[in-house]
Amino acid sequence: MTPKVSNEYKTQKKKEILLHAKNVFKRKGFEPTTMKDIKEEANISFGGLYMYFSNTEEIFLQLLELEFEANDEALAIHHSNSIWEQIQLFLQHQKADLKNMRDTLIPISYEYFVTAWREKHRVPFLENRYHVAKDKFTTLLKMGVANGEFTPTISIEDLSKLLISTLEGLNVSALFLEEDIGDFDKQLDALQKLLELALQVQEK
Amino acid sequence: MTPKVSNEYKTQKKKEILLHAKNVFKRKGFEPTTMKDIKEEANISFGGLYMYFSNTEEIFLQLLELEFEANDEALAIHHSNSIWEQIQLFLQHQKADLKNMRDTLIPISYEYFVTAWREKHRVPFLENRYHVAKDKFTTLLKMGVANGEFTPTISIEDLSKLLISTLEGLNVSALFLEEDIGDFDKQLDALQKLLELALQVQEK
Repeated sequence: MTPKVSNEYKTQKKKEILLHAKNVFKRKGFEPTTMKDIKEEANISFGGLYMYFSNTEEIFLQLLELEFEANDEALAIHHSNSIWEQIQLFLQHQKADLKNMRDTLIPISYEYFVTAWREKHRVPFLENRYHVAKDKFTTLLKMGVANGEFTPTISIEDLSKLLISTLEGLNVSALFLEEDIGDFDKQLDALQKLLELALQVQEK
Repeated sequence: MTPKVSNEYKTQKKKEILLHAKNVFKRKGFEPTTMKDIKEEANISFGGLYMYFSNTEEIFLQLLELEFEANDEALAIHHSNSIWEQIQLFLQHQKADLKNMRDTLIPISYEYFVTAWREKHRVPFLENRYHVAKDKFTTLLKMGVANGEFTPTISIEDLSKLLISTLEGLNVSALFLEEDIGDFDKQLDALQKLLELALQVQEK
């Protein structure tokens, strides 16, 4: 009879494998990482690894989901702050995120994203991620309009999309430019001023 | 005695190979393309191919240079227009460029760029490309300040860098989002309005 493995054990084991896999992806990138690399890093057998995951893409997507969840929590709406304060806080967070980016899976995720045009099965994931981000910003900006903080001169939808594009571009630039060339802190300050102008912010 | 090959013949042959290689890169992407693929597409021998190029990266970089040169010509400063008109024209060009992107090497170039963190020899090329783009925008904006068209409320340097980031992000988004989701035309119109606000444009 096969020994029974508890669900807690499985969840714990899966989490361990994911952590080891994250190290490999961060070191090697998405495409070059193999199941053998992850097996060796996690110090388990192929049988043990394939019990939990079928391929590197499945592992990578689960890691991305975990990272997005952590981000979403950090960016939850704080009802104690004004909307403009929340946007300013968010942009401050972005400064820190850009500095720490090379410790996360973001650089690796771009490798995965920018080849989606020839790996079409990745597109729905990316479209979904885009809609979630866009909805988050439009909700926030509409709350600011509703409470009288903002009198936008540009459509909220378009502004939200442009904001996402700009943040996307900052991430991509920070993949290969050092802070002293890219001046990402200053770019985010400039972005804040642009938003302030476009939204005609009234401090509450 | 080896038959003499004229310089004109060599230049012509090289151009032909580059055109064939471009087709392969556009179809397969950067990483999956091999010298064998290019040899077959160009219908030549390995000896013939290696007479002109050592590897796929060398071919790819020469193709990128050609594409950048063509772009630079399209965006040369037109002394007959006001600076603000030139910026508006540039943003209109961007709309068309985003629509045609999948016919160019831009999607493939992102594959090459976003893995530069682990292929460090690519970084100088990218830094140089960044400096060229930044200098182009700052020169243009400074001309607008000098002739009294612009009274910017944000540093010209920071605004130029932010503009590059935004365009970079639009390119990346357009890799996997269709126009009806990304609304790139509207995003570029919104970007134009933001610049108009930040520069306090005075029509001449």
